[in-house]
Amino acid sequence: MRLVTYLHHGMTGVGTLDEQSARIRPLDLFDGRPIPDMLTLIREGLDAITPSVMRPAIPRVEVDLLAPIPRPTRNIFCVGKNYRRHAEEFARSGFDTSSSAAVPEHPMVFTKVPESVIGDHDTILYPEGTSNAVDYEAELAVVIGKPGRGISRAQAMGHVFGYTIVNDVTARDWQQRHGQWFLGKSFDTFCPMGPVLVTADELDPSALDIRCWVNDELRQQANTRDLIFDIPTLIATISAGITLQPGDIIATGTPEGVGAGFDPPRFLRRGNEVVIEIQGIGRLVNDVF
Amino acid sequence: MRLVTYLHHGMTGVGTLDEQSARIRPLDLFDGRPIPDMLTLIREGLDAITPSVMRPAIPRVEVDLLAPIPRPTRNIFCVGKNYRRHAEEFARSGFDTSSSAAVPEHPMVFTKVPESVIGDHDTILYPEGTSNAVDYEAELAVVIGKPGRGISRAQAMGHVFGYTIVNDVTARDWQQRHGQWFLGKSFDTFCPMGPVLVTADELDPSALDIRCWVNDELRQQANTRDLIFDIPTLIATISAGITLQPGDIIATGTPEGVGAGFDPPRFLRRGNEVVIEIQGIGRLVNDVF
Repeated sequence: MRLVTYLHHGMTGVGTLDEQSARIRPLDLFDGRPIPDMLTLIREGLDAITPSVMRPAIPRVEVDLLAPIPRPTRNIFCVGKNYRRHAEEFARSGFDTSSSAAVPEHPMVFTKVPESVIGDHDTILYPEGTSNAVDYEAELAVVIGKPGRGISRAQAMGHVFGYTIVNDVTARDWQQRHGQWFLGKSFDTFCPMGPVLVTADELDPSALDIRCWVNDELRQQANTRDLIFDIPTLIATISAGITLQPGDIIATGTPEGVGAGFDPPRFLRRGNEVVIEIQGIGRLVNDVF
Repeated sequence: MRLVTYLHHGMTGVGTLDEQSARIRPLDLFDGRPIPDMLTLIREGLDAITPSVMRPAIPRVEVDLLAPIPRPTRNIFCVGKNYRRHAEEFARSGFDTSSSAAVPEHPMVFTKVPESVIGDHDTILYPEGTSNAVDYEAELAVVIGKPGRGISRAQAMGHVFGYTIVNDVTARDWQQRHGQWFLGKSFDTFCPMGPVLVTADELDPSALDIRCWVNDELRQQANTRDLIFDIPTLIATISAGITLQPGDIIATGTPEGVGAGFDPPRFLRRGNEVVIEIQGIGRLVNDVF
């Protein structure tokens, strides 16, 4: 299923998006109650939901698509330097003060605050006077469905609910200056997400094309098969000490081609548009202002 | 006020603790409704609450004190290497792979997941087989009352609701191996907190003695006047890009004397008891098992 969270006449709903007919089909629980939000859907599971009988399909043009999980219940898990050529470009850039190894031997995990999430076509607010090194990072994001701790690599994919797109927007000057990356990653509006959440049964995440354009210029082009630490490894690593919860989001890292990787760097400016496309998921579009 | 969250006959409540009479006085909103939790109290503000007329005081021995905020709404903000002598001992220890400078020039901020919070006298679960370098870190924690972004140092203290104690328990091997500190800081049960939350009007946080014992042996002894980055600086730094929210918790960093600072290191073991005392706030006691 291609799930979306939408806003229609001021009401938030959860439904499936049919791109062919350009319609959204609202979803209910089996007892007929509308599903209030995506987190409820994830906790209840796909077996507990059904297309609404009472509520008709809505033309896509009549709704605003929000981030699939507009307000995650805790910070988003993010992975740094998880594509080799990006790890190398980042090491060369001078913005990486995190560790001595250019390519990490173990997953580097940090977080973004949940309130940094914005949806498709929302605006990334340029933090005028606070940072002048705002960068884009196209990423495949994993949404956890089944809770667990000490999840093995072999069991890991059974804990995945689905996949979406995240732009891990970053203030490089803050990332560099503060050593730990959290602050430079968590500015308000720095986590564009969605709009579509594709359920795990419909997508093999191991070899997806991922691309990113700034103002129609292709900047990032890679494939998820080049992840240094694959999704099972990330889930096993994070859940070794931390109980994963339904609705947790893991942004798996960005490939080569970020603004900091150019010499001189090509950071985002007001008026820019960032488009991210991941094969089988869709497109996420945000302007900067 | 000395605020606590307590469990009494299976019901959670919020009240004031009177240590002299060893009683807890339940709190209501002015319309007589009981305050359901500390986050509601913080959002409503001290002017909106009153001692309960209907509900009598409860002897402290009849309740379990929980963490003052048992489940923060997002990850806890934590500051690394914020006492000079701790920064130096940590650099010497070999566990610091975070940056080249022993003493940071800018605040280093990372997070712990909200579900890592436990209360006074709860057990820190030893992650057998996952880490064998579990360490204690006694810290003064600031609780935010008033939301804001771009808060100046001069305004910062007006955004503080109060203060509590945090033990920023750390798996040093994970902290070292993964570069970014989040994973090693966020294991289940790795954030003992409380039990008392002292409101800002009752405490000057700028010169408080802070001490930590392991099995009655004094390990940490310092004063908050030795913070490299003081509370106004931390609030200004974090809120430069991130809108702070009521109920946000900032753990301000630990002083010298952690287990990793000894040669050889003296990490926590099953059966240990960790006691943290901060002047004007109280004591936080947790065993390890």
